[in-house]
Amino acid sequence: MVLGEVTLVDAYISMFGMRLRIALAEKGVEYEYKAENLPKKSPFLLQVNPIHKKVPVLIHNGKPICESLIALQYIDEVWHEKNPLLPSDPYKRAQARFWADFVDQKVHIVGRKTWNTKGEEQEEAKKEFIEILKTLEEQLGDKPYFGGENFGYVDVALIPFYSWFHAYETCGNFKIGTQCPKFVEWAKRCMQRESVSKSLADPEKVYEFVLVLKKYYGID
Amino acid sequence: MVLGEVTLVDAYISMFGMRLRIALAEKGVEYEYKAENLPKKSPFLLQVNPIHKKVPVLIHNGKPICESLIALQYIDEVWHEKNPLLPSDPYKRAQARFWADFVDQKVHIVGRKTWNTKGEEQEEAKKEFIEILKTLEEQLGDKPYFGGENFGYVDVALIPFYSWFHAYETCGNFKIGTQCPKFVEWAKRCMQRESVSKSLADPEKVYEFVLVLKKYYGID
Repeated sequence: MVLGEVTLVDAYISMFGMRLRIALAEKGVEYEYKAENLPKKSPFLLQVNPIHKKVPVLIHNGKPICESLIALQYIDEVWHEKNPLLPSDPYKRAQARFWADFVDQKVHIVGRKTWNTKGEEQEEAKKEFIEILKTLEEQLGDKPYFGGENFGYVDVALIPFYSWFHAYETCGNFKIGTQCPKFVEWAKRCMQRESVSKSLADPEKVYEFVLVLKKYYGID
Repeated sequence: MVLGEVTLVDAYISMFGMRLRIALAEKGVEYEYKAENLPKKSPFLLQVNPIHKKVPVLIHNGKPICESLIALQYIDEVWHEKNPLLPSDPYKRAQARFWADFVDQKVHIVGRKTWNTKGEEQEEAKKEFIEILKTLEEQLGDKPYFGGENFGYVDVALIPFYSWFHAYETCGNFKIGTQCPKFVEWAKRCMQRESVSKSLADPEKVYEFVLVLKKYYGID
């Protein structure tokens, strides 16, 4: 089970793909990388993820696992000995799942609105985005990581968005770091891990991709 | 850990609350029931779920667990011996999580649109809803349950929506059963379990509540 072929169908700028790159690096799992050229989708992607048609898809021994948080849990369950991501206590696990889900429901959705909306809606999104980060800062408290002393599930789920901040800030014309210094401190702490620094996309490339997306979807 | 006080903050018509009622019944866990009078929200609900402010909230030994799929996994992890809901194999677990997430992303979201939209949007929603159920029928195949031979995680996540079908059908003026007979067969099979039949809301009461919601949100 633990051995076997691993493939990651991914796109360089995907924050969801970055989660799996980080987790696989943390676990020391080698894998084949298949890059998708978004926003186009390859026949292979449609074949391995016929329901949602999205990256990333983790393929282990020929079996595809879709949806990044689900794949993240799969990675943690299969390669559980090295750098466990989810805590073993059921209540702490539930809390970690809650905050990772919060990242998907809030950070992702509202973060996107900082660049794909305009006017009043964009102003609202910027304000809400800062509030979301402040909620996360409160949740972090004085711990080095959301996982406590150890870099864990919520940290992996959240840190990829940091590589999108430059795009959010530039498109939204606002500053995140000055309003959420504790969040940025945490992000820089994560970036000291090789698993993170090697997995996160270059913020300039993310910004360039966002400009492509804006054009593709006719936003501006 | 396994013993201890359990409280469920819930609303009778909540499909998400029904999930937890079913799971607690499957596990034979007794609990205190605190009914919320939706769409109003009690100060207690805001206290135990300050982030999302939604039912259901499971409280175990004074600690709240929010988001029904997360609470469902918590219940399965804490009371794991009796009627396990998630399979033990990591790939099968990932698949079960995928389809439960599909229920939230598709059945729930599109189901709601059958009664809270109008005109073209409603017609689209009705068509999409049937397609979603057909995808689920395909996934079920010839198995008695989504969990295979045993009633499992996806079954618990999905069956509560059956009690909303009458409201969807009446508000949307369409028939689900004739188009998805295999789905209804599965639903009736689930309803033979006391854990399900005693946990699901009366479809007439759900419909009445939907009419209240439509009025509350000014839909019509």
